[in-house]
Amino acid sequence: MDFQEERKQKVTNIEEILVRYLPEKKGCQKLIMEAMEYSLMAGGKRLRPMLMQETYTMFGGEGRLVEPFMAAMEMIHTYSLVHDDLPAMDNDDYRRGRKTTHVVYGEDMGILAGDALLNYAFETAAGAFEMEPEQSQRIGRALGVLARKAGIFGMIGGQVVDVKETGHAITGETLEFIYELKTGALIESSMMIGAILAGASDAEITSVEKIASDVGMAFQIQDDILDVISTAEELGKPVHSDEKNEKTTYVTWKGLEGAKKDVEQISEAALGELRSLDRSNPYLEWLLSELVHRKS
Amino acid sequence: MDFQEERKQKVTNIEEILVRYLPEKKGCQKLIMEAMEYSLMAGGKRLRPMLMQETYTMFGGEGRLVEPFMAAMEMIHTYSLVHDDLPAMDNDDYRRGRKTTHVVYGEDMGILAGDALLNYAFETAAGAFEMEPEQSQRIGRALGVLARKAGIFGMIGGQVVDVKETGHAITGETLEFIYELKTGALIESSMMIGAILAGASDAEITSVEKIASDVGMAFQIQDDILDVISTAEELGKPVHSDEKNEKTTYVTWKGLEGAKKDVEQISEAALGELRSLDRSNPYLEWLLSELVHRKS
Repeated sequence: MDFQEERKQKVTNIEEILVRYLPEKKGCQKLIMEAMEYSLMAGGKRLRPMLMQETYTMFGGEGRLVEPFMAAMEMIHTYSLVHDDLPAMDNDDYRRGRKTTHVVYGEDMGILAGDALLNYAFETAAGAFEMEPEQSQRIGRALGVLARKAGIFGMIGGQVVDVKETGHAITGETLEFIYELKTGALIESSMMIGAILAGASDAEITSVEKIASDVGMAFQIQDDILDVISTAEELGKPVHSDEKNEKTTYVTWKGLEGAKKDVEQISEAALGELRSLDRSNPYLEWLLSELVHRKS
Repeated sequence: MDFQEERKQKVTNIEEILVRYLPEKKGCQKLIMEAMEYSLMAGGKRLRPMLMQETYTMFGGEGRLVEPFMAAMEMIHTYSLVHDDLPAMDNDDYRRGRKTTHVVYGEDMGILAGDALLNYAFETAAGAFEMEPEQSQRIGRALGVLARKAGIFGMIGGQVVDVKETGHAITGETLEFIYELKTGALIESSMMIGAILAGASDAEITSVEKIASDVGMAFQIQDDILDVISTAEELGKPVHSDEKNEKTTYVTWKGLEGAKKDVEQISEAALGELRSLDRSNPYLEWLLSELVHRKS
């Protein structure tokens, strides 16, 4: 089986895990459970849980302890999209060709479904304490990383700066700050949690954070590059949207060639750090390279 | 010192704890930190952290392990108010005589400040693992209760049903369901977490959940009673608002006398259960009685 095929199977496997960790749709609160499922099961690369699982197995993690955290991570990523799409934020009616959550369920339920997903993420992750009480210290540490990287020093922090700066030109440094927090933080916590739950050492966890930070940055720069060089057909969404919105991007900052050079350099640094570890996961190596060189 | 005086000092002490657990306002994300502080430090009874601390000491809890959870609980309560006040929800411009968070900081920051408070609640509570790693099992259990009672099977669940049912007549059973979840759940988790962190037995935790559930219900019924019998001066907010909004309340359901009788009966049950415990906290006993018989 080649890596492409393996990746498809892993996505299917992750989606089965997600469904398993969603609440059963019943009771007076059924509506919110439907809205949670609608947004969580809307497709996507499932990148964060995949990186978490691959890092977990790379460090010798076995069993299902990582699964509630994989589900929690995707719930956090999803809630951020649901709230991002709200009328008071980006006001998007469609995402991946489907109506956004607040369009289907109303704006009030859009807010509550986001809240519910964020809260349920921690509820789901906390379920790990019951699975393996003897691993409570590790699980506690993983929970701390999950919360910190999703919060004001992580994803929300990036989002706040992004929202504040929308509509005016920003410096390259601010752009990097936004990318590091808004995109990078959850990639970092995904890989760090995989390492922590598998029992990696502090030095290994630090390495993994560095790798993930580079991967997140290269991924985001590639996003800006694709918006310029790709076709709408390849990308599956409108191209040149950044230019139309007069948005500062990595390409407007460093130029197309500069951006391409930086993607190469940053992803090489990530792969170099990964190869320097006393562990190996060929699929993870392939995946990281694939992500930053992707065409869509 | 009488209990009234003691209560004031305890509120001051809790507010000092809250300030200590707020993030330092700095960096590019300073704005969201200001919005978090604005909403968290807007006053209020500080009931939930107080009940948590009193239950903690009643079961012999010592030291500061309970403090991050006290702060987390008030952050969760506060985020729920911030999101409740949003234009797409209750659309309230004022709360306790101050402009609401989204009025001051804009609707986008109102959404993000609520998200940030909810996330920071878990980040703060997870800090307990670093304070006392050897208590990780207890802390993990407390975190699970914190998440569950705030989520779709707790507060958010009640909120969803409340929002859905706004504007039409509802049954007494639905009203009880909303009160149990929207108000009761956080009172339950406050007292349960205090008990769990102090090392109470499973039977004691079950007792505490029952006491808190009754207290929450009596508190909420008393709220409906005060809206009818109190004066705006006594209450510090407009009275007869439920009647004006044609809202189904416990008083419209059971009549004023029926509601008063139920408050007595439910609070007696709570106090009876509290007295049956092999522990005592005279201040807590006074507080519970005070809450359900309050005039404002």
